[in-house]
Amino acid sequence: MVDIATRVYNHNWKIDPIVRSVLDTDFYKLLMAQTIFRRHRDVRVTFGIQNRTTSVRIADLVDEGELREQLDHVRSLSLTRGESTWLRGNTFYGMRQMFSPDFIAWLESFRFPDYHLEKHDGQYVLTFEGPWIETTMWEIPALAILNELRSRGVTRSMGKFELQVLYARAMARVWEKIQALKQLPNLSIADFGTRRRHGYLWQDWCVQAMMEGLGPSFSGTSNCLIALRREVEAVGTNAHELPMVYTALARHDEAAMARAPYEVLADWMQDYGGNLRIILPDTYGTTQFLAKAPSWVASWTGIRIDSKEPIEGGEEAIRWWETRGQNPREKLAIFSDGLDVEPIIRIHRRFNGRMRLGFGWGTLLTNDFRGLVADDGLDPISIVCKVVSVDGRPAVKLSDNPTKAIGPADEVERYRRVFDVERQVAQPVLV
Amino acid sequence: MVDIATRVYNHNWKIDPIVRSVLDTDFYKLLMAQTIFRRHRDVRVTFGIQNRTTSVRIADLVDEGELREQLDHVRSLSLTRGESTWLRGNTFYGMRQMFSPDFIAWLESFRFPDYHLEKHDGQYVLTFEGPWIETTMWEIPALAILNELRSRGVTRSMGKFELQVLYARAMARVWEKIQALKQLPNLSIADFGTRRRHGYLWQDWCVQAMMEGLGPSFSGTSNCLIALRREVEAVGTNAHELPMVYTALARHDEAAMARAPYEVLADWMQDYGGNLRIILPDTYGTTQFLAKAPSWVASWTGIRIDSKEPIEGGEEAIRWWETRGQNPREKLAIFSDGLDVEPIIRIHRRFNGRMRLGFGWGTLLTNDFRGLVADDGLDPISIVCKVVSVDGRPAVKLSDNPTKAIGPADEVERYRRVFDVERQVAQPVLV
Repeated sequence: MVDIATRVYNHNWKIDPIVRSVLDTDFYKLLMAQTIFRRHRDVRVTFGIQNRTTSVRIADLVDEGELREQLDHVRSLSLTRGESTWLRGNTFYGMRQMFSPDFIAWLESFRFPDYHLEKHDGQYVLTFEGPWIETTMWEIPALAILNELRSRGVTRSMGKFELQVLYARAMARVWEKIQALKQLPNLSIADFGTRRRHGYLWQDWCVQAMMEGLGPSFSGTSNCLIALRREVEAVGTNAHELPMVYTALARHDEAAMARAPYEVLADWMQDYGGNLRIILPDTYGTTQFLAKAPSWVASWTGIRIDSKEPIEGGEEAIRWWETRGQNPREKLAIFSDGLDVEPIIRIHRRFNGRMRLGFGWGTLLTNDFRGLVADDGLDPISIVCKVVSVDGRPAVKLSDNPTKAIGPADEVERYRRVFDVERQVAQPVLV
Repeated sequence: MVDIATRVYNHNWKIDPIVRSVLDTDFYKLLMAQTIFRRHRDVRVTFGIQNRTTSVRIADLVDEGELREQLDHVRSLSLTRGESTWLRGNTFYGMRQMFSPDFIAWLESFRFPDYHLEKHDGQYVLTFEGPWIETTMWEIPALAILNELRSRGVTRSMGKFELQVLYARAMARVWEKIQALKQLPNLSIADFGTRRRHGYLWQDWCVQAMMEGLGPSFSGTSNCLIALRREVEAVGTNAHELPMVYTALARHDEAAMARAPYEVLADWMQDYGGNLRIILPDTYGTTQFLAKAPSWVASWTGIRIDSKEPIEGGEEAIRWWETRGQNPREKLAIFSDGLDVEPIIRIHRRFNGRMRLGFGWGTLLTNDFRGLVADDGLDPISIVCKVVSVDGRPAVKLSDNPTKAIGPADEVERYRRVFDVERQVAQPVLV
């Protein structure tokens, strides 16, 4: 029996929206937004898209009109009643009322601000200017849209069975990875793949496959909408934008600049406890950050090891906790940079039993279509949406891997001096 | 929008029928049935199921009640108006009106006869007794039901995503095979996989994948229902049951027995021309059959090489045609025994340009789930439904591979003498 109404409704779609909900974003965005809402609502922060895989000319693959339609659709979204109810009533990290009523009221009234879009040299120059609390909300949907429009562009010309086999292969690949990970004792792994996902439906599939395949070893998804719909944990903590903006705000006073990343933690500690107290130390170099950290920082629950080579970063964290009189076995180390089965197994083998481990598996979970179409046309790209400027002045990230550094050269040099960071070794960035 | 009526309808199913149409059978059954209808309607022939893979105890895997439900459902089927219209109006092998009005009228009135079902030593003893024209119709649906019930039994306990990945893997495997075959010039390949299929929907998927993946190199399907629904060629010619019954009918006169396989061809030639004139020479040994064949047999369009090792069988056919003053380049050799990509490529490499080639790809197209579940539980089994007796006397097949011989030992010995067949070399039977 054909449901005529459904068919007619489907035929009347003007576009097939990629992002259909304010909650189709990473949980850490909401946590950070609440911290920003309480302290820095009026700081003006510009975010900008940067495709580090310059060999992939996205502007040639993705139609500008379609991109505008998708971005405009996001601007028409607002938090629904059920979504608001979920934020108010759900338990996050074991806590009720993680979000205060005034923040949720703000989120209910939130609409995405305007965007600026140009093309330059085969890439889109896509920026978001305005109050930090608003522009920060664009990071994840903008990235998800660009990645999914690219996927759609590549798959558009494929036959029905060719497509089915493409997804069949990708499914078998994800499932094999899950079967390999299942063998690891005490595994705790989450989906961190919203921003670079092949598509929303694909991320949703991957999450459900992890639920069935990993059972309790699957610790949740960073995606709020999928967490809501699939009734799993929403996970995530914070990102480089906090120290980047805090430091830029202190730009007139180099001593204040050097203190700024710790002030992020001091503010965060007022807002969140327990497993949300995870240090992200690499914005201006991990080693110096840890060496100069106030004593209370060592009492935090754990650390996220991101741009540093993971074995090195893990060993450094253990040494640091020991120096500070902490027991690394009680600490949580979250690994999240370019993970896939092989690195996860390697990290797990090295550190299991020496620290509590958590893995945030991103791009190579939700977008591993490597080699599945001609010319590697669906291989994931390293695309980010980062803070470009704060109150009109450039923002800077150094990171442990200079390939990931952000900011004008002279500012990068100044930050190196302020944060006492020597020349670092560049590592290739896969995703 | 939920279509409530469809959901309620679906919930009201008593069983999920495996065979839903009289036409869900192989095309050669209809061709043979017409020949039987015209000449031997009243011969009583018993067909019986034999599982040559005795290590798989089907009676332990398939519930007897469910098997009876499926068989009883087949007994409730009759040719629909649209199916009858298709048989009357469609072109088969380039011909209109392949089936005469009286035969179609008979098929419209046809109902499947009763069956006998017992269990013995972990296997079902399933036999069909009655007029040949009726019992012959059971071969394909009975096999399809047993194979699909086994698949259902194995997959019943699997999780939703585990199932999806199972089919994803099987799809990727079929697609890789299709991509490999696509490289062969002048390829002509058909689906012969109804009887041993994993399931109806899976066979239907495989046919559609071949349509998209192989284009004009895909020559059709043996399955009439899929041919009708997917609008592709229905293909197939004849089987061992014709010489087996004809020879058994001549059992009182050994000279008549020796002539019987050629009388099959003489009758067939009255009914069918062109590409349907394909000799199946191996019922009582290919070599002797060809050596003793009347001269008109060599003028037939081609040969089907089934139980003989295919390279040997092909070379033997070429030599025979040359001896008989025929040009092998104009002849068609159809290979159909246990085919898969590797043998197809090997046979194609050896004979392309020397004969016209056709491939009938069966079990390893529509049921290659080898190694995809634990304990190889979905590996295909070698199960057949063969003529057991004719007018109460045993039927015999020798074949080129004694592993495939059928009949009581003393009768097999007698047939060897009548057909001048020496001891043969046994080959393992995979499918």
